[in-house]
Amino acid sequence: MRGVAAHILSLLVRQGSTMAVAESLTGGLIGATMTVPMGASAAFRGGVVAYATDLKASLLDVPSGLLDREGAVHPDVAAAMAAGVRAVTKSDYGLAVTGVAGPDPQDGKPVGTVHIAVCGPGDRLWHRDLSLTGDREKIRRETCEEALGLLRGVLEANLGEHSG
Amino acid sequence: MRGVAAHILSLLVRQGSTMAVAESLTGGLIGATMTVPMGASAAFRGGVVAYATDLKASLLDVPSGLLDREGAVHPDVAAAMAAGVRAVTKSDYGLAVTGVAGPDPQDGKPVGTVHIAVCGPGDRLWHRDLSLTGDREKIRRETCEEALGLLRGVLEANLGEHSG
Repeated sequence: MRGVAAHILSLLVRQGSTMAVAESLTGGLIGATMTVPMGASAAFRGGVVAYATDLKASLLDVPSGLLDREGAVHPDVAAAMAAGVRAVTKSDYGLAVTGVAGPDPQDGKPVGTVHIAVCGPGDRLWHRDLSLTGDREKIRRETCEEALGLLRGVLEANLGEHSG
Repeated sequence: MRGVAAHILSLLVRQGSTMAVAESLTGGLIGATMTVPMGASAAFRGGVVAYATDLKASLLDVPSGLLDREGAVHPDVAAAMAAGVRAVTKSDYGLAVTGVAGPDPQDGKPVGTVHIAVCGPGDRLWHRDLSLTGDREKIRRETCEEALGLLRGVLEANLGEHSG
């Protein structure tokens, strides 16, 4: 995954943009991966690990009503986390993940349910919703891979727009 | 490191306590490690990745004057990060790390300079200051190990006090 992280950092630097992460089930794995390459500080600002549901509201401004109604594992929660971390860290892109790593279901959602969101300039949103299989470690690792893959795709598309 | 993480979680659960992390050079590695064991949510609440220096002030309430005066790599910054993450996440223990992973020095501090702090009940503080050697990956991994080692020692000592 460090290859993808380095690629994302170079795309961000080329665009003069920055990013931050909001993580739930991965607990910090995406941020740890993004900071493996040297020089990560040129584009990676940091983020929030909102593992407990109430921290999604208090640290990332996810609406409490949404969390009460849908639980923590929902596409709208991922979107709100991405927008929230973008705002609180004053970054150009926010990347967020929420889901169920297992071994037990959460908020009525089966193990492997994962929602990923990117929030970019102009509050534009991109989504990816997954049903992963395997154990806790595999689900967390694949969530990290898919999240970085989504952000890379967004940045590559934007680069195309900007140079077009 | 997952063995230490599981041990810390069990010590916290036994004490009815919770924890959160504030990470700089590790970028999320400590949180990722703490959430490897199943059932981590019983004691691990989340945290803040304050990779960019200004996020240490805006998200963790580290005094800007301290950051201006000493830079981001200083024992007092680690202590303020630990107290800050404990407060903003409403956790019983805050564990914080700041340091220089390299390859370049930062704020006049050589590569391998690392400061770790734990802030616990009653704002009690514990410190560990290190001069690590090796490459970026080794420094980040050893920072994570030393940080978890400090917290484990604090929790074991507290357990002794409580049972004494």
